Amino acid sequence: MTSFNIILFDDFETLDAFGPVEVIGKLPKEYYLKFYSLDGGIIESSQQVSVNTLPFTEIEPTGVLLIPGGMGTRNLVNDVNFIEQLKILSEKASYVLTVCTGSALLAKTSLLNGLKATSNKRAFEWACSNGAEVKWVKKARWIKDGKFYTSSGVSAGIDMTLGFVSDMHGINISRSIANGIEYIWNSDMDNDPFAV
Amino acid sequence: MTSFNIILFDDFETLDAFGPVEVIGKLPKEYYLKFYSLDGGIIESSQQVSVNTLPFTEIEPTGVLLIPGGMGTRNLVNDVNFIEQLKILSEKASYVLTVCTGSALLAKTSLLNGLKATSNKRAFEWACSNGAEVKWVKKARWIKDGKFYTSSGVSAGIDMTLGFVSDMHGINISRSIANGIEYIWNSDMDNDPFAV
Repeated sequence: MTSFNIILFDDFETLDAFGPVEVIGKLPKEYYLKFYSLDGGIIESSQQVSVNTLPFTEIEPTGVLLIPGGMGTRNLVNDVNFIEQLKILSEKASYVLTVCTGSALLAKTSLLNGLKATSNKRAFEWACSNGAEVKWVKKARWIKDGKFYTSSGVSAGIDMTLGFVSDMHGINISRSIANGIEYIWNSDMDNDPFAV
Repeated sequence: MTSFNIILFDDFETLDAFGPVEVIGKLPKEYYLKFYSLDGGIIESSQQVSVNTLPFTEIEPTGVLLIPGGMGTRNLVNDVNFIEQLKILSEKASYVLTVCTGSALLAKTSLLNGLKATSNKRAFEWACSNGAEVKWVKKARWIKDGKFYTSSGVSAGIDMTLGFVSDMHGINISRSIANGIEYIWNSDMDNDPFAV
């Protein structure tokens, strides 16, 4: 069993976190889902979802890390302590998945330096500004480079997570999950209809 | 401003609730989102999301109601008090939207009797068994009949909610939201690729 650790913060984007959670939740024999924030306690998304979290200190460090985006990232990229803690967690994690502007948070840790990554299209320039040494790719539904998966905006996180599951457990598992949740999976990471 | 009231219960399906929430959250001048359960307090989804809720007694009764599905519905259809309370809320609501097996809960109130409705495909027979007088439609991404919107499984709730927004505020608003969240909207309620 692998720990799948979701990093939350105030004003995270609801679907950035819970799209991937829906997918991973279909593999209860492989992963257990846990929700964390820097200090733990109640965290509220930009869409008023009020979620209970555990503090960073309780994270199983070798698990998978999911970092959503959202308006909350605009301040967090300048929060030196948060970025430092996120860097420590991301270094130890077996895999790190980011959705939307979550890639800006990860870029700020410098762990994406020299690697390819993507982010959502409406805040693309801003994401790039948080990682000058990242090889940003604008046209991509998601990108895998080493242990880092980064995705485009919001819904792209679902496609990326199905891609992650496919890499880990085979494409038939991902197709079965997509069918079960009646989701039309865009399984081609290069097919990004929102890049133009 | 209209109150958009999400009904939660233990073992609700995460994306059934938070897909629609993501869409409605893009219209903060039109709707405010609130989360309720029968007695209020912490509710946990089947994917371990632990959400803070208010009790049914605090619901703004003329708002829009969203009823997700999930494994928790299997017991709830037999909970006479819950169904009675849900019936009172659904009668007063301006619109009622259900996702997946949430339509079984609504069917159990008898308010769908004589009306067309749909549900998800993997539990379709079970959903039908909870409303013998409902005109169940198997091949539909979502159905609108009067003030009731019912959708197919999980992801179909996103398409239905964009359809609801289109009916209320125009299709350009829905297209703009879908584009913003980089979601490929299946805007044709009759296009149900999972029905076969």
